[in-house]
Amino acid sequence: MKRIALVSVLLSLISLVGLAQGTFVPPAAEGWHRTPSTQRQSEFPKMNDAGEYWFRFRAPETAQDVKLEFAFVEFPARQDAEGWWHVIAKAPKVGYQLVRWIVDGARIPDPGLEFTYSNGWISTIEIPSPQDDYYLMRDVPHGDVREHWFYSKVEGQWRRAYVYTPAEYDANPGKRYPVLYLQHGAGENETEWTHTGLAAVIADNLIAEGRIEPLLIVMNNDFVYRPGDTRGRLAMAPDWAGNFEEMFLQEAIPDIEKHYRVIPDAQHRAMAGLSLGGMLTGTVGVRHSDMFAYLGIFSGGVVSEPSLLRKDVTKLVFETCGSEEYPERIETNASELKALGFNSKTYVSPNTAHEWQTWRRSLYEFLPLIFR
Amino acid sequence: MKRIALVSVLLSLISLVGLAQGTFVPPAAEGWHRTPSTQRQSEFPKMNDAGEYWFRFRAPETAQDVKLEFAFVEFPARQDAEGWWHVIAKAPKVGYQLVRWIVDGARIPDPGLEFTYSNGWISTIEIPSPQDDYYLMRDVPHGDVREHWFYSKVEGQWRRAYVYTPAEYDANPGKRYPVLYLQHGAGENETEWTHTGLAAVIADNLIAEGRIEPLLIVMNNDFVYRPGDTRGRLAMAPDWAGNFEEMFLQEAIPDIEKHYRVIPDAQHRAMAGLSLGGMLTGTVGVRHSDMFAYLGIFSGGVVSEPSLLRKDVTKLVFETCGSEEYPERIETNASELKALGFNSKTYVSPNTAHEWQTWRRSLYEFLPLIFR
Repeated sequence: MKRIALVSVLLSLISLVGLAQGTFVPPAAEGWHRTPSTQRQSEFPKMNDAGEYWFRFRAPETAQDVKLEFAFVEFPARQDAEGWWHVIAKAPKVGYQLVRWIVDGARIPDPGLEFTYSNGWISTIEIPSPQDDYYLMRDVPHGDVREHWFYSKVEGQWRRAYVYTPAEYDANPGKRYPVLYLQHGAGENETEWTHTGLAAVIADNLIAEGRIEPLLIVMNNDFVYRPGDTRGRLAMAPDWAGNFEEMFLQEAIPDIEKHYRVIPDAQHRAMAGLSLGGMLTGTVGVRHSDMFAYLGIFSGGVVSEPSLLRKDVTKLVFETCGSEEYPERIETNASELKALGFNSKTYVSPNTAHEWQTWRRSLYEFLPLIFR
Repeated sequence: MKRIALVSVLLSLISLVGLAQGTFVPPAAEGWHRTPSTQRQSEFPKMNDAGEYWFRFRAPETAQDVKLEFAFVEFPARQDAEGWWHVIAKAPKVGYQLVRWIVDGARIPDPGLEFTYSNGWISTIEIPSPQDDYYLMRDVPHGDVREHWFYSKVEGQWRRAYVYTPAEYDANPGKRYPVLYLQHGAGENETEWTHTGLAAVIADNLIAEGRIEPLLIVMNNDFVYRPGDTRGRLAMAPDWAGNFEEMFLQEAIPDIEKHYRVIPDAQHRAMAGLSLGGMLTGTVGVRHSDMFAYLGIFSGGVVSEPSLLRKDVTKLVFETCGSEEYPERIETNASELKALGFNSKTYVSPNTAHEWQTWRRSLYEFLPLIFR
């Protein structure tokens, strides 16, 4: 015990000397383990049982000012004797949070974490949220998420969609299922509703609880480029919704109805999306409301042209946002829709803004309301 | 014409002034378009019909020395008046090539490109290779690649596998298929054989040509961690193959045979892998050669214990590498195996090293040799 105490005192002294020199002395490895978002082959970031997260980064040698942006809060980094920059901090928020290093003004992802496509590639970390257990992996049957390719004449190239099929799908080759078309936001792509939104896990859990019937979920990319249009995201303007509409209705949906066992009628077809995907639902989905009995708009505005909805088809218009967004706006719109005789429901996610926790919760609230 | 000539002269002058100041003047946008590896929402990198690639990057403000590593060759970058760094260069090699910015010694991926997990996240670009047309997307039926989750008791957590199912799979619910278990290399993960290796496209094309029968391809992660083992990739030692062996044989394969319509016998089961995955094939696959009639070792050494092979089961041992690796070693081993009475074949990929072009070609050569 005496020797341990001595070592401890010496370590403290080294640490103080380090502080005096501005050099960071990393803590001992004990008690730290990899986070759930740390890549299998990576050592960092780590976390401990006190809820602290430890990030480490190799910045350019000339770097002077190194900070870590962690869930939209900036933490100053400190350099150790070997040149690594470190930050140890508690998580400012729960859920799926952005992490990036800010090196003299340049934002650089953390190479040890999961990467997500969101306005360019970013690194992200999952912070546990006690009140959100519906998206945790449980010991229940799991569906597959299929990478599926189809040729788009509108674009003149192959497009990728992701298709969630419920766990029972392969075992019931004679059965057909309802289908939800689910769109991402402006910064993202077709991978994000399952990778970040955990749509497949949410559906698996709701099916296992018997709260919803098995369904398919199809996720397409929002962006559609005409051949020769080389502007990337700028190609949205002037007719971003029109480009998507043609691809979606004439190519994506027929392709799904050809290759998967879905029920090809409006009462078994839903459309929803977040942010830009919600705007697509509020435009393309509403314009073609003879095709979709259920519409979900998550943080994507409201139905601005209710006259396009079809009373003989529309079963539900579901509008959501975070409490820090515009709850009054969706409540007002919902009242207008109700006054017109539509079944309109809203959901406001507590203590969240324009972020994934809002959209995970929105999907979790939406699924039990559709195909009933 | 006169006005255009004047503008052209003025632009040249501005360019010369820029050169004198060391400031880069970007070329006009005409003739440049996004590369096939540029993210849908991104504007850069671009390419032109002369085979030049144009990269652009926002480095830290303090950056002094900015270079681009492009297919293992370093190109100096030049800064424009707005602070962006630029490189315009022809591709040094064909195939899937690494791209990263080197900012005062730190290596940073290019945010506009596709990202791949390979010893951390890297950005990559696909350079056309005239002699390798077998991995191009063609107008043929395409199978799905399924993200599939199963619980591992060995690890005490859920594991992800990717499963390629051929295009005809869903339409033949009574039919069972042979299955190839295909492992990645040490720096990679279970996504890479389809994302980078284009295994699904290669299989689709060979099936469409009638050169192989439809099969399933299952891709698992090489790394298996015992509960409490927090060392990341270091956890490979001391029993990396043993950990994998237990997970693979007792959990991964039985799970596939439960959830997919594969033929569960050795004559319809193959194992192959690249680099570390080849070493797993040469150890775990050879040790259990009663289970796999076909073994493929791509840039992963050779069969060091031929006595473990089973003459009544083994139909093929296929060893490959790039011409810049160790062709003599695999030829020598193949001769030894032949002398022992085994069907041993080799393939040496011309003008390639320990790289994806070697492994794409190896898979393309291997598939027509198995399940015959």
